[in-house]
Amino acid sequence: MSTIFTKIIKGEIPSYKVAENDKFYAFLDINPNAKGHTLVVPKDEVNKLFDLDDTTYNELMSFSRNIAKAMEKVISCDRIGMTVIGLEVPHVHVHLIPLNAMEDIQFMKKVKLQHEEFEAIAKAISNNL
Amino acid sequence: MSTIFTKIIKGEIPSYKVAENDKFYAFLDINPNAKGHTLVVPKDEVNKLFDLDDTTYNELMSFSRNIAKAMEKVISCDRIGMTVIGLEVPHVHVHLIPLNAMEDIQFMKKVKLQHEEFEAIAKAISNNL
Repeated sequence: MSTIFTKIIKGEIPSYKVAENDKFYAFLDINPNAKGHTLVVPKDEVNKLFDLDDTTYNELMSFSRNIAKAMEKVISCDRIGMTVIGLEVPHVHVHLIPLNAMEDIQFMKKVKLQHEEFEAIAKAISNNL
Repeated sequence: MSTIFTKIIKGEIPSYKVAENDKFYAFLDINPNAKGHTLVVPKDEVNKLFDLDDTTYNELMSFSRNIAKAMEKVISCDRIGMTVIGLEVPHVHVHLIPLNAMEDIQFMKKVKLQHEEFEAIAKAISNNL
């Protein structure tokens, strides 16, 4: 069975896309810790980050860095945090989260955004890549 | 003024070293979220992860992956989580944390280890690199 991220990549579940290439897909977390919270996933379903092959791992990190640098340009924050956990969805996903305080990366506080805000922020990041 | 991590790298503050090369230093977090919680830092003091130059960033990610794979061999856990936050010490540090539950990566629960446990786990990871 496909993971929720594979369904998003295939367009079976809609998403606010930030970037895509042949191996990776980046989109806004629909239940964000902070405005601009982005997920980067490899298109191949691999459960654990460190089980990715060398090349894919390095490319994922590099792709994520590019997204983070675009996020820094358009989101007001102290810095972009990066975290890979993966206990809930068995498909590698890199969280890129605008941080101002520790709670922004603890996955306890969530922010509510409107459809238009998601669209605007996804577009703004994408335009700065 | 040197950061606490620079003092650790220079040996001015003792640490449980896991690995070192010319550019990076890995050691156990003295106030760990979980047994085996390791920090990987570049020897050059740079505040923010995404301000590292391309090469150093990629090498840091690759070096961290090697440490994580060694950790997986010696620590019983669901997976190794990776997180870069950096709000407290202005010197890039990659957290590699053995995860079994979400709280292991929330920096709220801490575990208390004895000197001998720190020594044993640092040596075990190091021996599996």
